[in-house]
Amino acid sequence: MERVTGIGGVFLRARDGEALRAWYAEHLGVDMGEWGGKQFAWTPGGSTTWAIFDADAEHLGEPAQSSMVNYRVTDLDAMLAQLRTAGVTVSDEVSDTDYGRFGWAHDIEGNKFELWQPPAGE
Amino acid sequence: MERVTGIGGVFLRARDGEALRAWYAEHLGVDMGEWGGKQFAWTPGGSTTWAIFDADAEHLGEPAQSSMVNYRVTDLDAMLAQLRTAGVTVSDEVSDTDYGRFGWAHDIEGNKFELWQPPAGE
Repeated sequence: MERVTGIGGVFLRARDGEALRAWYAEHLGVDMGEWGGKQFAWTPGGSTTWAIFDADAEHLGEPAQSSMVNYRVTDLDAMLAQLRTAGVTVSDEVSDTDYGRFGWAHDIEGNKFELWQPPAGE
Repeated sequence: MERVTGIGGVFLRARDGEALRAWYAEHLGVDMGEWGGKQFAWTPGGSTTWAIFDADAEHLGEPAQSSMVNYRVTDLDAMLAQLRTAGVTVSDEVSDTDYGRFGWAHDIEGNKFELWQPPAGE
């Protein structure tokens, strides 16, 4: 059978696209293209995880939030500090696991997102 | 400044997680792990595109759909045929571009998703 081989993209609908794009550029350092997005080239050892959660999953933020994106970062602590300094809502929780370190924050439209510092070499 | 370096994951909230996971396994060939998802390893030349669309973007499906995932496939025509044979709602439109071929369909919960056959070598 034919099978999906990877995650080629994720597209978010904003209430105010211009403001949300500016927010991600300013706080998460996304070099936004003229078309409102960025193509992240795959690097050796990396991966993108895709999963379907149950309706009551607290991990995805408020019940009305229908999806959550996980963003790779090089230095989780530095990214969290950068966000806190800018007044962004950042979770106090940081999760240290065998597959990396995780933190969470909310964007200007209230979407919870995940930050992930993978283990070295992944 | 600290910058996001890639898309590490995308997580979807289902109304009926068990049914939606089974649907993606059956129709899109996703080998679902025990935890309800799959880790797609990055391959040379690949990329994941991330973008923020405006509120009225028709590309993302119905106005209530807040995000859309793009899935990489090896043979778009074969995947679309597989979906049609199974009775899945598939768009008649196929887009041929310099950066690949695109098609669209809807899952069992009404989420529009994109299928992408990248150019050879990407």
